[in-house]
Amino acid sequence: MSSPYTLILLRHGNSDWNQKNLFTGWVDVRLSDQGVAEATRAGELLTESGLTPDVLYTSVLTRAIQTANIALDVADRAWIPVKRSWRLNERHYGALQGKDKAQTLAEYGAEQFQTWRRSFDVPPPEIDDNDEYSQAKDPRYVGIDGDIPRTECLKDVIERMLPYWESDITGDLAAGKTVLVTAHGNSLRALVKHLDDISDDDIAELNIPTGIPLVYRLDENFRPTQPAEYLDPEAAAAGAAAVAAQGKK
Amino acid sequence: MSSPYTLILLRHGNSDWNQKNLFTGWVDVRLSDQGVAEATRAGELLTESGLTPDVLYTSVLTRAIQTANIALDVADRAWIPVKRSWRLNERHYGALQGKDKAQTLAEYGAEQFQTWRRSFDVPPPEIDDNDEYSQAKDPRYVGIDGDIPRTECLKDVIERMLPYWESDITGDLAAGKTVLVTAHGNSLRALVKHLDDISDDDIAELNIPTGIPLVYRLDENFRPTQPAEYLDPEAAAAGAAAVAAQGKK
Repeated sequence: MSSPYTLILLRHGNSDWNQKNLFTGWVDVRLSDQGVAEATRAGELLTESGLTPDVLYTSVLTRAIQTANIALDVADRAWIPVKRSWRLNERHYGALQGKDKAQTLAEYGAEQFQTWRRSFDVPPPEIDDNDEYSQAKDPRYVGIDGDIPRTECLKDVIERMLPYWESDITGDLAAGKTVLVTAHGNSLRALVKHLDDISDDDIAELNIPTGIPLVYRLDENFRPTQPAEYLDPEAAAAGAAAVAAQGKK
Repeated sequence: MSSPYTLILLRHGNSDWNQKNLFTGWVDVRLSDQGVAEATRAGELLTESGLTPDVLYTSVLTRAIQTANIALDVADRAWIPVKRSWRLNERHYGALQGKDKAQTLAEYGAEQFQTWRRSFDVPPPEIDDNDEYSQAKDPRYVGIDGDIPRTECLKDVIERMLPYWESDITGDLAAGKTVLVTAHGNSLRALVKHLDDISDDDIAELNIPTGIPLVYRLDENFRPTQPAEYLDPEAAAAGAAAVAAQGKK
């Protein structure tokens, strides 16, 4: 089957708040030292694979941008064009942003906790605009279409991410460019759900490991012609298991 | 006088080849550790100044991109939009690219050396497309308008840089955005010559220090309303003197 297009997905590495076990969402935390090492490894994997991204898409969150900057610098592709959009941001975690995950689990119980983490269409409570972890006054979101979200479920992420996929990213693919998308656990789950046609139920079980490029070969209709492959499959399996285990702490 | 627009120019920090005293031009060398420290300091100066770049312009050379990435990361503005163009590249140094400066000076004499470094309209000899330091086969220049240069004098740099200033950068200024341009000694000298209306003769004496943001306040016609200011004037004076001394080694 003809696979003219190549798409590479990369989830940012470990952040300061991953280490502290806090809900992050749109809070703009930085990569931890471990995250920097993961981004460096991602760049090495790109180099070893022979894949040469022609254009980069990122969210407007620093941890994804740092990951892309480091990986492309290592892969000697720092010079490719860059496009950023809030539509690739992590899921907005609503009032949970800034909260301790273990404490939230203890306070609300396993069922509610897992619903907030993994249900397809139940968002956490909205964050107050005056909350210290609200982005209501963040200059990077001035002028975005419509209102800034105050909470999101995965369904909401899909609804704001897919239009950007269709309006911008597929255009670069159609021009024959190898596209690198550096983003987040949930914005990438949203894209993978679309590409692999995963059901609303099954997507709950899908975990994307950090820092390991995931390569799609796509046909003229931007559909996969074969299963997507991680550039380091063993590390990817271990990483996905680690993400899944987070919900069980 | 009304100064609605703010433009910040930043010359990349010390590179591996600055340290080796080689002519660099379009050869894509990386920042040295000193250059990384200079870029970090530039980010701190931006933060201290209260200036908040809204959009970044860079060349397509890694040392300028690294400088911008580091400085904006430090200044907590990694998320701003980025536009890159070869038109902001360093002057192409022709057949001198990759040559040792001291050896070139000894071989050709002080007059010829200074002519190549600082004359307004005499370029060095052209580089051969098969030279190891030619960019004739570099993928980042595929499809650029017209032929890739094989050598340039400062006049040539002005002629390929100014159209981009007029077509792209002034548009962002006119939209009220604070613009950061992170580029090179000669592409920035070309822009400063235009902004400050410096004569072809006098521009030879102008040296721009590395790693210190230079701030212009511009009127509606993109003309300076007051002399441009370095964010660290003392360090800038010392840095400019150091650049001037390079020609006298």
